[in-house]
Order: sequence, then C-alpha cells, then structure tokens
Amino acid sequence: MEENILIFGHKNPDTDSICSSIVKEILNKKNGCEKSKAVRLGAVNKETQYVLNYLGIEAPELIEKVEEGQKVILVDHNEFNQSVEGIQNAKILGVIDHHRIANFETSDPLYYTARPYGCTSTILYKEFVQKGIEIEKTEATLMASAIISDTLLFKSPTTTEHDKKALEELGKIANINVEEYGLEMLKAGTDLDDFSEEQLINIDAKSLEKDGTKFVIAQVNTVSIEDVLKRQEKIKAVINKTIEEKGLSLFVFVVTDILNSNSEVIALGSRTDAVENAFDKKLVDNRMFLEGVVSRKKQVLPVIDKNI
Amino acid sequence: MEENILIFGHKNPDTDSICSSIVKEILNKKNGCEKSKAVRLGAVNKETQYVLNYLGIEAPELIEKVEEGQKVILVDHNEFNQSVEGIQNAKILGVIDHHRIANFETSDPLYYTARPYGCTSTILYKEFVQKGIEIEKTEATLMASAIISDTLLFKSPTTTEHDKKALEELGKIANINVEEYGLEMLKAGTDLDDFSEEQLINIDAKSLEKDGTKFVIAQVNTVSIEDVLKRQEKIKAVINKTIEEKGLSLFVFVVTDILNSNSEVIALGSRTDAVENAFDKKLVDNRMFLEGVVSRKKQVLPVIDKNI
Repeated sequence: MEENILIFGHKNPDTDSICSSIVKEILNKKNGCEKSKAVRLGAVNKETQYVLNYLGIEAPELIEKVEEGQKVILVDHNEFNQSVEGIQNAKILGVIDHHRIANFETSDPLYYTARPYGCTSTILYKEFVQKGIEIEKTEATLMASAIISDTLLFKSPTTTEHDKKALEELGKIANINVEEYGLEMLKAGTDLDDFSEEQLINIDAKSLEKDGTKFVIAQVNTVSIEDVLKRQEKIKAVINKTIEEKGLSLFVFVVTDILNSNSEVIALGSRTDAVENAFDKKLVDNRMFLEGVVSRKKQVLPVIDKNI
Repeated sequence: MEENILIFGHKNPDTDSICSSIVKEILNKKNGCEKSKAVRLGAVNKETQYVLNYLGIEAPELIEKVEEGQKVILVDHNEFNQSVEGIQNAKILGVIDHHRIANFETSDPLYYTARPYGCTSTILYKEFVQKGIEIEKTEATLMASAIISDTLLFKSPTTTEHDKKALEELGKIANINVEEYGLEMLKAGTDLDDFSEEQLINIDAKSLEKDGTKFVIAQVNTVSIEDVLKRQEKIKAVINKTIEEKGLSLFVFVVTDILNSNSEVIALGSRTDAVENAFDKKLVDNRMFLEGVVSRKKQVLPVIDKNI
C-alpha cells in the first residue's frame, strides 16, 4: 500500500480532474502535509496536455487500483462508479467536488467540501484565499485552465459568479490573456481525428446507475459537430458493443459545439425513451439536436436521470 | 409547501442538532438569506431545554414531514433514515455535518461541508470567522452548548483541537464559565426519572442499515448507570417490542456515565453476535460493561457496523 495520501479525479480525467489533483497536492504541501501525491485514473486528454506542456510539467502518475486502507482524497467526483477500483475499501480522508452526491459512502467522518460552482478549482482557489496561502504561477495556471475547461470560457450555464471572480484573479497571477489562452486550450482538446471510435466514446464517459438501471453519458467537445458525426455509423457500432459488454440500458453520446454552444446527441439502448422524454423531442435515426445545450451536468444528466 | 428554507438536525434531536439549526438560521440571516428557518424533528431533551431556558428563547417549530421540492438544509446528520419524512423528494441545498456519509444522495450539486470534528457547531463557528460575520452572545452560547454536549466537556475521544479552540473563544463571547455552565447543562440532561422506558430508548436513538440489516444504537447519558439500569427488565421488554415492530436485527442501548467516562450496554435481537465480536467480550444477561467508552460515533458505531 502506498504510504502517501493519493489525490485523484474521476476516470477518463478531464482538465479539472488532472489540474485540481495537482493543485490539491500543492495546497496540502504548502499547508504542511508533505505526504500528498496527485495521481490519475486514465489517459491525459489533448486539452489537458496543452496545459501541462504550457507549464512544462509532467502528468501525475497513472494508477489502476488502490489497496485496502489506502488513504485517498477525491477531487472532482464522488460516485464510486466513477472512481478508482478498490475505492470501497480505501480510507477516504476528504472530497472536494462540485457534483451531486450519490453512490458514495464512508464508515468514518471525513472532510467533504462540495459547492455548486462550475469547477472544482474554484473551490480550491477559495481554500488558498481562506487559509491565506500564497498562490504561485503554476497553481494559478492550473486552476485557471480547469475553470476555462469546465465553464467553456463562461459559455456553460454551470458558470457561477464564483468561477468568474476566481478566473479573473487567477488569470492575473498566471499572467495569461484568459480569452486567448483559453481558446487555444479548448481548441487543442477538440482535435479528435486520430482517436478511434472506441476511444472517442470513452474520452469523457460518465457511468451512472439509478435503481439498478446502468447508463452512460459521454461527451466530446468540437468546433464542428459535422466533422465528428461523419463517423456516426462506426460510432454507433462501438456504442452498441459497449452496451452489450457492460449490460447498459442506455448510452448517450453528446457532441458539443463549443463555438456555437449547441450539442447533437446519439442515444442507443433499450431506454432511449428517457432521452426523448427528457427533451420532449423524438430521436431520428437515434440522433437529436439540442439547441443551447452544452453542460452535461446541468442540462443533460438531471433531465435524463429523472426519466430513467 | 413552506416557502422558507427549512434547517433541521436529526430525529431525536440532541443539543447539537437543535442549537446548530438555530445558529445556521442566524448565520444565514446575517449573511443576507432572510428566508432561513430552523425547525426540529422531535422533542427537545432536558439538556437542550436547559440551554434554551438559560437564553430565554423558544425551541424551533416541530415538523413531521416535508413536501416534495421543499428547500432544506441539514445540520448534524445526512443519512436519510435519520432525517425527516419526505427527505428523498426535498431539494437539499446544503449539509453541515460531522458524521460519516451514507444513505444520502441528491440529484443536483449542493453545498456540503463535512469536517471530522467533535461537533457541528465547531464547523459553524469557523464559518462565522471565515466570512467575517460577528458572533453575538446568543449564537455563542448556542454553539458553546452544542460543543460541550457533543464532547462531554472534552471527555469524549471525538474531541478535536478545533472544538477546544472554538469553545474557548465562544465561552468568552458567551461570557460563561465553561466548566461550571457545562456541568450544570450536562447534569440537567441526565435526569431520566420521569421518562417511560419507551421514551428512554428513544431519547437519542440512531437508526442504521447495512446490507439490508436494520439496527438501532440508542444512547443516554447519566451520572449513575445503576440508577438507569434498576429498570432493566422493563427496558428490555420495550426494546424487544421495538425490535419486533420495526423488523430490527439488533438494538443496542448504551448507558453512558458522563462523570466516570464508562458505558454499560444492553444488546438484544438476533445479531447480538455483532456486539460481542465488536468488543471481543461476551454479553452476560444481554449486558456488557465498556470501560472508557463514551462516544457512539467513534467507539461504538464503527466497530458494530464492521461486524454486521
């Protein structure tokens, strides 16, 4: 068992998951907890790689599972089915998150800080400020990048005043032009051409469960929905394969146009009715266009969850 | 549906549950949220009544259930089986708690502040300080009382440095001699003579569930274990009745001597083996003496839970 306290975000890590785990390690160390160590549960995506390259820092080490009794801190998630293998028997010391709470439990009291903000890094930013700990350029850039990613440069309806204020301050410390840097970073993440269809549907796939019904909502960002969906037949084939292999009732693949703030979804499985009822719209050829929808957390997950 | 945001602690409210809900209402109002309203889920116990009398304030209104969509904030608990009827369909805006997290879920992001401290009011005290909101005598006395109650004047192993520091500061603002006031308050709570046996086992009863096994751990504080257990035959009879009525596998009744910091337990049901295994000791006549055990949360619940 690793002696360190392992800090990690969710499976299929996005920029918030990777950046917030590194920042939490930095924050803990500045706060006197030397044993903290950021790790990750999956491949670094291209958007996040852009951030790491910009700073010239390495990605956290990849882990596959944790041993019984391993001390851990979760960032950017809490649901066990989105977490590391073995999480049920780990010792969860803390959680910093901005999602709903579900499929989560501990046997002991813990630190749990959830806020309904757009990004985990916004909560971390406030922790630095509250504790009076200096924010240096590296962690400022990491937190700014996470906020830009999660809020799609404030275009996402998940954006709160807290995120805006945090990004404003962090941008200054990081010494970046938030708009320019942000667009470059987001665009870096939308280069999907060299992903296989199998990889594509797993870049940011969230596994969910309600009353025994298992479903997945996956999302990719792009600057051209057309460009992604020219591969739709192959994408549908791998989704159907995943549904069969994992015993899913529904797989929703959300392709989000980050420039125009719209999404097109592909929905497959025995419970596509949940998607039709959620948006009060019929699927045509298992596809549906969603005007103004960009946030899985706020605009997609809750309405589908209610109809499962 | 009540338009206010209802704030409440757990069923069978103790001093922390009642005081922290009143304090959270005060904190929210000082913070600009006028619609906050403390309520309670059960009778005020004698210890808490001592506090309310000392301050000359009324107990919060009693509620039985909440309607669908009711906005609520939970203090001092999170598990739905310890909460109000209808909680599953309420809109949980926030939780402030110092217990493990289990049997809890939301469909939306929320404010959740858990800390592994001895008392919910210690977390609230820090919120006042962090937000720079003035603590006046009333809320200082309420928070101090909650901390004294939950930590048994620092005799409980659940006590942390955070609780000690908070109580020290709050005692000054409340202008009380913490030791003197605390002993009076604790003693007021141990006057159990005019409770029926049925009331006795419900003063502070926690309903728990693990893998479908339902069990209850109830606790009363006393200055004389002898004095409480002279009624043991009648107490056992009502416990057996409760086990049958509620389909429980185990009922543990913990009688805690707050002066000498020991407990005697009565355990009944089909799973008393969990208690014997938890403490590696045999029950004699369904009773067991536990030297140095005063904290249900830290010394009783986790070990029994592990053996269920």
